[in-house]
Amino acid sequence: MASILILNGPNLNLLGTRQPEVYGTTTLADIEAMCRAHAAARGLEIGFLQSNHEGALIDAIHAARGCHDGIILNAGAYTHSSVALMDAISAVALPAIELHLSNIHARESFRHVSHIARVAVGVICGFGAQGYLLAIDAMRGHLGGAG
Amino acid sequence: MASILILNGPNLNLLGTRQPEVYGTTTLADIEAMCRAHAAARGLEIGFLQSNHEGALIDAIHAARGCHDGIILNAGAYTHSSVALMDAISAVALPAIELHLSNIHARESFRHVSHIARVAVGVICGFGAQGYLLAIDAMRGHLGGAG
Amino acid sequence: MASILILNGPNLNLLGTRQPEVYGTTTLADIEAMCRAHAAARGLEIGFLQSNHEGALIDAIHAARGCHDGIILNAGAYTHSSVALMDAISAVALPAIELHLSNIHARESFRHVSHIARVAVGVICGFGAQGYLLAIDAMRGHLGGAG
Amino acid sequence: MASILILNGPNLNLLGTRQPEVYGTTTLADIEAMCRAHAAARGLEIGFLQSNHEGALIDAIHAARGCHDGIILNAGAYTHSSVALMDAISAVALPAIELHLSNIHARESFRHVSHIARVAVGVICGFGAQGYLLAIDAMRGHLGGAG
Amino acid sequence: MASILILNGPNLNLLGTRQPEVYGTTTLADIEAMCRAHAAARGLEIGFLQSNHEGALIDAIHAARGCHDGIILNAGAYTHSSVALMDAISAVALPAIELHLSNIHARESFRHVSHIARVAVGVICGFGAQGYLLAIDAMRGHLGGAG
Amino acid sequence: MASILILNGPNLNLLGTRQPEVYGTTTLADIEAMCRAHAAARGLEIGFLQSNHEGALIDAIHAARGCHDGIILNAGAYTHSSVALMDAISAVALPAIELHLSNIHARESFRHVSHIARVAVGVICGFGAQGYLLAIDAMRGHLGGAG
Amino acid sequence: MASILILNGPNLNLLGTRQPEVYGTTTLADIEAMCRAHAAARGLEIGFLQSNHEGALIDAIHAARGCHDGIILNAGAYTHSSVALMDAISAVALPAIELHLSNIHARESFRHVSHIARVAVGVICGFGAQGYLLAIDAMRGHLGGAG
Amino acid sequence: MASILILNGPNLNLLGTRQPEVYGTTTLADIEAMCRAHAAARGLEIGFLQSNHEGALIDAIHAARGCHDGIILNAGAYTHSSVALMDAISAVALPAIELHLSNIHARESFRHVSHIARVAVGVICGFGAQGYLLAIDAMRGHLGGAG
Amino acid sequence: MASILILNGPNLNLLGTRQPEVYGTTTLADIEAMCRAHAAARGLEIGFLQSNHEGALIDAIHAARGCHDGIILNAGAYTHSSVALMDAISAVALPAIELHLSNIHARESFRHVSHIARVAVGVICGFGAQGYLLAIDAMRGHLGGAG
Amino acid sequence: MASILILNGPNLNLLGTRQPEVYGTTTLADIEAMCRAHAAARGLEIGFLQSNHEGALIDAIHAARGCHDGIILNAGAYTHSSVALMDAISAVALPAIELHLSNIHARESFRHVSHIARVAVGVICGFGAQGYLLAIDAMRGHLGGAG
Amino acid sequence: MASILILNGPNLNLLGTRQPEVYGTTTLADIEAMCRAHAAARGLEIGFLQSNHEGALIDAIHAARGCHDGIILNAGAYTHSSVALMDAISAVALPAIELHLSNIHARESFRHVSHIARVAVGVICGFGAQGYLLAIDAMRGHLGGAG
Amino acid sequence: MASILILNGPNLNLLGTRQPEVYGTTTLADIEAMCRAHAAARGLEIGFLQSNHEGALIDAIHAARGCHDGIILNAGAYTHSSVALMDAISAVALPAIELHLSNIHARESFRHVSHIARVAVGVICGFGAQGYLLAIDAMRGHLGGAG
Repeated sequence: MASILILNGPNLNLLGTRQPEVYGTTTLADIEAMCRAHAAARGLEIGFLQSNHEGALIDAIHAARGCHDGIILNAGAYTHSSVALMDAISAVALPAIELHLSNIHARESFRHVSHIARVAVGVICGFGAQGYLLAIDAMRGHLGGAG
Repeated sequence: MASILILNGPNLNLLGTRQPEVYGTTTLADIEAMCRAHAAARGLEIGFLQSNHEGALIDAIHAARGCHDGIILNAGAYTHSSVALMDAISAVALPAIELHLSNIHARESFRHVSHIARVAVGVICGFGAQGYLLAIDAMRGHLGGAG
Repeated sequence: MASILILNGPNLNLLGTRQPEVYGTTTLADIEAMCRAHAAARGLEIGFLQSNHEGALIDAIHAARGCHDGIILNAGAYTHSSVALMDAISAVALPAIELHLSNIHARESFRHVSHIARVAVGVICGFGAQGYLLAIDAMRGHLGGAG
Repeated sequence: MASILILNGPNLNLLGTRQPEVYGTTTLADIEAMCRAHAAARGLEIGFLQSNHEGALIDAIHAARGCHDGIILNAGAYTHSSVALMDAISAVALPAIELHLSNIHARESFRHVSHIARVAVGVICGFGAQGYLLAIDAMRGHLGGAG
Repeated sequence: MASILILNGPNLNLLGTRQPEVYGTTTLADIEAMCRAHAAARGLEIGFLQSNHEGALIDAIHAARGCHDGIILNAGAYTHSSVALMDAISAVALPAIELHLSNIHARESFRHVSHIARVAVGVICGFGAQGYLLAIDAMRGHLGGAG
Repeated sequence: MASILILNGPNLNLLGTRQPEVYGTTTLADIEAMCRAHAAARGLEIGFLQSNHEGALIDAIHAARGCHDGIILNAGAYTHSSVALMDAISAVALPAIELHLSNIHARESFRHVSHIARVAVGVICGFGAQGYLLAIDAMRGHLGGAG
Repeated sequence: MASILILNGPNLNLLGTRQPEVYGTTTLADIEAMCRAHAAARGLEIGFLQSNHEGALIDAIHAARGCHDGIILNAGAYTHSSVALMDAISAVALPAIELHLSNIHARESFRHVSHIARVAVGVICGFGAQGYLLAIDAMRGHLGGAG
Repeated sequence: MASILILNGPNLNLLGTRQPEVYGTTTLADIEAMCRAHAAARGLEIGFLQSNHEGALIDAIHAARGCHDGIILNAGAYTHSSVALMDAISAVALPAIELHLSNIHARESFRHVSHIARVAVGVICGFGAQGYLLAIDAMRGHLGGAG
Repeated sequence: MASILILNGPNLNLLGTRQPEVYGTTTLADIEAMCRAHAAARGLEIGFLQSNHEGALIDAIHAARGCHDGIILNAGAYTHSSVALMDAISAVALPAIELHLSNIHARESFRHVSHIARVAVGVICGFGAQGYLLAIDAMRGHLGGAG
Repeated sequence: MASILILNGPNLNLLGTRQPEVYGTTTLADIEAMCRAHAAARGLEIGFLQSNHEGALIDAIHAARGCHDGIILNAGAYTHSSVALMDAISAVALPAIELHLSNIHARESFRHVSHIARVAVGVICGFGAQGYLLAIDAMRGHLGGAG
Repeated sequence: MASILILNGPNLNLLGTRQPEVYGTTTLADIEAMCRAHAAARGLEIGFLQSNHEGALIDAIHAARGCHDGIILNAGAYTHSSVALMDAISAVALPAIELHLSNIHARESFRHVSHIARVAVGVICGFGAQGYLLAIDAMRGHLGGAG
Repeated sequence: MASILILNGPNLNLLGTRQPEVYGTTTLADIEAMCRAHAAARGLEIGFLQSNHEGALIDAIHAARGCHDGIILNAGAYTHSSVALMDAISAVALPAIELHLSNIHARESFRHVSHIARVAVGVICGFGAQGYLLAIDAMRGHLGGAG
C-alpha cells in the first residue's frame, strides 16, 4: 500500500483565515480530511504535516525515506528562495510534486521562481484545495497506479 | 452537459514520434481517446484540436465562445512567446488551464516563462499524458462539478 | 487619389465584445465605417483588413505595394514580439503608422516594446477608435495633403 | 469653450534652428500660430508655453487647474527622466497627451522610456509640427467634442 | 537653540488636493503649523520651504550652512533621480533625514530607489503628516536632545 | 489599552557587542527597557521578543492575532530575503512597521531590498535605539492615538 | 540520391526588391535555380519552399521526414523569436543548417539571438546568395559526401 | 590549545547516502572522525555540529564566542541565500573559513554566489572530505600555527 | 579672438569648502582667475558661469550661440542624468568638452555614466583645477590654435 | 593569384588530441594540408599560422596587408573577449571570415558572443575541418571568383 | 613520483613588493622555496613558472602534458576574463586547482567570476602563501596520495 | 629631471593608416616626435613604447619602476577588458593617466568601460594626437611642476 507525505510550509496553518479572496475559507484541517478520504478511496496512505520552519520541513523530507513513496510539497513562500528544500528533495530521491493553492504565475513576479520545481516530477497550481486531490491522483499515476 | 475544448499547439501532432525520452510514445490520437473516455465517464463533452499555426489557435479560442465552457491549452512552444494567445484567452472570457506534458521548469530557462499563465485558472505540468486527465478533472472542479 | 491600407492584427476581430473597460464597445466594423467616412470626406481611399495570423499580415503588407500609398498598422499583440512584421514594413518601403487603441505605456511593461515602431513614421496610442481617424489625418499629412 | 494648455520643454525654443534633419525648420512660434488657428477653427482656446526649467514646467501644470481642461505636453528630454512631471500631471487630475515631434522609438534607446506616458491619455509621436494639430484633435475628442 | 530646515520638493505644494487616497487632505500649510508647534514644544526652531525646482532646493541646502543644524528633506519625485541633491547634502555636511509621506516601498519600483538616502542619517516613510513630527524627534535625538 | 508586539530577528540578541561602530553599545535588554518606559508613559502595552529562527518569528506573528494591535518588526537580515515573513504580516492583518537600527540604504546594496516593506505601514531606519521609540510613536499615531 | 529541403521564411519572397544595399538584387527564384544547378552537379536532389507563415514552415519541416535527408533553413526574422521552429527541427531528427544572407552579427543586437542554432549542425551567414551553395556543400559533407 | 568549531548546514546529515556521484560515500560521522584525528595530531580541539535549521546555525555561531578560536562553516545550500549567517560571522568576530565538498563553481550558477565568503578569511571547495582537513590546516595557519 | 564659455553645474559654487579630500581647497573664484590668466596668455576670451539649476545651464548653452566658439562643461551631478543638457549641446552645434575635477571612473558606478559625453569632442577628468587649463588648451587645439 | 591568410588562435595547436567528442581527431597539420590542396585546385595561395598569443595574432593580421587578399580567422576562445582582434581586422581593411570548428551557438552561452563578427564578412561554424574549405570557397566568392 | 606544475599569472612576479596590505611581503621566490620544501617532504616533484603573457601560460599548460600529473594555477587577473586558459586546461586533461592569495570574494565584484573554476577540481583562496601548500596537499590527495 | 613612460597598446602601430575618419593621418612616430619636443621644452624625459601584446605592456609597466615617475597609458582595445593592466598599474604604484585618441564615450558601448581608469589619476580622451601633449602637461602638473 503506497504512502504519500503531504508537506505544507509557512503560513499555511492560517489557511481559511488569511486573505480569503486569494485562498478561500477552507482550513488546512479541512484539506487534510479531504486528502485522507480521497486517498483512502484509492487505497493510499497519507502523512500530513505543516511547519513554519524551513529546517523542520527539511527534517520531515529526510524522515520520509523508508516511510513514504512520494512527497507532495506546498512549500508556500519558501518555494521562491529555498535551495535547501530543493537539495533535500534530491537527497532523499523520492518523487515530489510541487503544489500551490493559487496560480503563482498570476501573482507578483517574485512568486514565479521556484528552485524546487527543478527537481520535482511536476507542478500543479491554481486549483485551491482541489489541487491537493489532483496531486494525489498525479502521484498515484506516477507511482504506477491508475491516474 | 459541460463541454471542454482541448487545444494543442505546435509540434504536438508529432507526439509519440519525437524525443520519446522527454515525451514518451503515446500519440496525440491516444491522448484524445483517453480524454474522450475520461470525460464521458464524468458526463463531459470534449472538443479536441491541434495546429502548428498560432493564428489558427487564436481562431479556435475565439470560436470556443458559445460552444465550450472551458479551455485546456497545451500551447507548446508558443507558450513562451505569445502575447496574442494570452489576449485571446482574456477576450473570450472562458476559464483556461495551461497544460504541459513535461515539467517545463526542469528544462531550458526560456521554457520557464509563460504569458498565458497570467490569465489561466491554473497550470499543470510534468505528468505526461496523465496531465490531460488531471486537467479535465481540474476544469470539472472549476466549473462546479466534483473534482 | 491616395489610398491607405488599415491593417488589424490578432483579437481585434473581437473588438466591442472583449474587455470593454479597456477597449470600449465599438466593433471593428464600426471603426471600418468611421474610417471610410472620414477618408471619403478627405478624398482618400481605404483598404481595411483583419487577421489573427502573423503570416497573413505579412502577406497583406507585401500585397500593399503598388496598391496603397501608406499603411496604418494596429498589430495588436504581435507588436511586441514580431521582427518579421518590422521587416515586412521595411521591405515594401511604404510609410507606416503604428496604432494602438489603448495607451500601451500605461499597461503591462511587456506591452511597452515594439520592433515595428523603429521603422514607422510615428506612433499613436490611447485614443480608442478616434485613433484610427487621427492616423488617417497623420498619414494624409505625411503624404503631402493637409493634416 | 474648452481650453487646452500646450506645454513645451527643454530646447524646444530652438526649434527650426537645431538638427533640421531631425526636427525640420518650423519654429516654435510657427507651431504656436498653427495651433491657435487650428484650435480657433474648432472653438477651442489655447495656452502655449515653453521653458527649459523642469520646475517651471511643474509650476505651469499646477497653474493649469481651473484654467485649462487638458494639457498637451511635449516634455522634450525631461520625458525620459522626470518622475516629478508625471506626479504633477497626476496631481492636477487633468487629461494629458504626451507629444513628440520625432518618432522617439526610432532614436536612441534611452529615448524609448517615459514616466509621463503612464499617466497620459495617450501618446502621439513622429509627425513633426502636424503632431500638435493631431493632439488638439485628440484632446477635443477626449473632452467630448468631435474628433 | 537648535534649528532644523524642513525642505519640501516638487508637487508637495499641492498637498491636500492631490490623490487624497494616497496622501490625505492635510495641506502643506497644516503640516508647517504642526511642525512649528511640535518644535516649539521641544525648544527647536524651524525653517520650512517648498519648491518645484531642483536647483532651488540645492540653493536652499547650501544656504542652510550656518543657519540650521540639520535638514529634513522630503524631496518628492527628485528623490529617485537626483544625484545633485545627494551631493548638496554631502557638501554642506549637515545631518539630513529623508522623509516621505507615503510608504515608497509599497508603490512603483522606481520609487524604491534613492541616492539621497546614501548620505542621510536615516529614512522615515509611510506615516503621512505624522512623519514630519517623527522626523523632528529623530533629528532632535541625533543632535543630542532627548528623542 | 493598545498593545504592540516588538519583534527582533537574527543576531539582534548580540546587540551592544557586535560592530559597535555600526550599531552602538546599547543592548537589546536596554532597548526593551527603553521601549517599556516609553510605552508606559503613553498608556501602551508592549510585547518584546527576539529569535534567530525565521520560523519562530512567523509563529510569533501568527500568535499576535488577538493579543496585539500592531507589530514593530526589526527582521534583521531576514528583511532582505524572506517572503514568508511578508506573507505572515499579510495573513494576520495587523498593521506593521519595519524598523532598522542602521540606515540600510547607506550599506551594501543587497540590504536595500525588503519584501516586508511592501506590506508595512511604513519604514523607519538609521536612528539606532531611538528608532524603537519613534516606531512606538508612529504606531500609536497609526492606531489613532496622538503621534 | 540524397535530398535536401531548402526552407525560406518571412519576407524572403521579396528578395531582390527589398533593401538591396543589405540583400542585393538576386531574387529567390534566381537562388532556387542556382541551388538546383549546384545540387544537380553534385548528385543531390533539392526541395525549395518559402512561406511567411511560421506554422507553414513547421508543417514543411514535419513533412520533410521520409522525404529529405537534411534541411537548410533560412528562417528570416523568425530565427530570433521562434522556439516552435527549434522544436520542429528537434522533433524530425533531421540534420539542419541555419542560413542567413546577411551577417546577422553586424546588424541590430536583437538579430544576434537564435533558438534554432542550438539544434542546428552549424550556421552560415553573411555570404548572400552564395551562402545557399556553401550550405549545400556543408550538408553534403555532413551527410557523408565530399565537402 | 586552540579550538575550532566545524559547523555543517542543511542536508549534510545525509552525507554518504545522497547523490554519491557528487558527494561520495563518506558519512558526516566519518568526516568528524577524520577531523578529530587530524586535529589531535596537530594539538587542536574540535567542535563538530550539524543542523538543518538556519536559526540553529546562527545560535551555534553565537555560542562559539569564548569557546572556539575559529569557525569552519560548510553552510550547504544556506551559503547562497543567507545574509543572517554572514551577519552572525561578522558579529562574533571569529575568523571563519567557508568550505564546500563539491566545486560549487562547476555546478548551477545559483551556487556560485555566497554572502558568507565576503566575511570569511578564505574559501576551500571541490576536495570532498579532504577539504575539511585542508580547512583545519588553513585555520591553524591563520591562527599562527604551522600550516 | 576666440571665446570659450566655461559652464559649471550644481554644487560647484561650494568648491573649496566641500569634501576637500576629494576636491581640494581651491575655490571656483580661484579657478575662474586661473582660467582667465591662462586664456589671456593664449589670446583667448573666457565666459565663466555657475548655476545649480539645470534649466539655467541649458539657457546659458543656448545663449552661447553667436557669443562663444566652444563650451567647457563641468556639469557636476547633472552629467549622469541629464539628456536635456546633451540635447542643448547638440542644438547649438558648438564644440564642447566635458570636464570633471575628480576621476569619475574611480568613484561610485552611477558617476561613470554620461549622456553629455556622447556629443562632446572629448572628456578630461581627474586633474582637479588643472583640468580647466588642460580643457582650455584642448579647446584651443580643437579650434585650430596651437594645443 | 589571390592569397588567403588562415589564422588559428589559442589551443588549436592541440587539435586532434583535445576533446575529440567536440572537435574530432583531425590535426591542425591535416587541416593545413586539406586547405592547401583545396586552394591549389582553385588557383589560390594560402598562408597558415597558429598562435596561442593574442598579440601574435594581431601582429599576423597587421603583416597580412600587402601579402594577402583576405583573412580566415578561427580565433578560438579569443573570439569571445577580444576587441583588439576586431580592431586589427578593421585597421588592415581586409575582408575577414570568422570560422569555428564547433557550433558555438550550441555550447555555453559565453561562446555565443563575438566582437570579431561585427567586422567580418560572414561567419561559418559547426562543420569541423570542412568549415575551412567552405570558408576558402566563401572568401573566393567574396573576392570575385566563382563560389 | 608525482609531479605538479605550479603556474603563476600576471603581476605575481612583483609579489612582496606590491600592495602588501593585500598580499603580504613574501616574494614569489620565497613561495617557490616553500613549495619545493613542502613537496619534497611529501615525495612530490614541482615545476614552478610565472609569466605576464596569457599565451605563455597557455603554452606552459600545453607543455605540461606528459611532464606533470596536475596543475596548480594562480592565473591572477586572467582568472576573470580568460576563456582560453579554461580551454587549455580542458584540452590537456590534467587535474587543475585554482588558487588565489587573497579572498577574491571579499574584493571587487569583477573578481568573483572565473571561467577556469568551471573546469578545475577545486578552488582555494584567501590563505596567502600558505594557500600554495594547501593546494599541494589537495592535489596530492586528488592524485591518490594522503591528503 | 622627471621622466614619463608613454605606453601604447594594440593596433596603435598602424596609426595614420587605419580608419583615418576616426583617428586621422598622424603616425605613431609623428606622435612620439611631438611628445619628445613637447617634453623637452618642459624639461621632461620621455620613454615611448608600443606593443600589441598585453603581457609586454605589463612587463613594460613593471620595468618602469625606478626608471620613470609616471605612466601615460593608451591601452587601446585592452582598456575595455584587461584587469591585469589595472593590477600592474596598482602594483608599481606610479601615477598613471589613461589616454585615448578618440572620444570612447561617443563610440560603441563596450568601449565605455575601463578597469584601468579606476586606478588612474585621470582620463583624457577625444583630442587625437594633441591628447598626448595634454597628458604630458597633466602628468607634469600631477608631479608638481607647472600644469
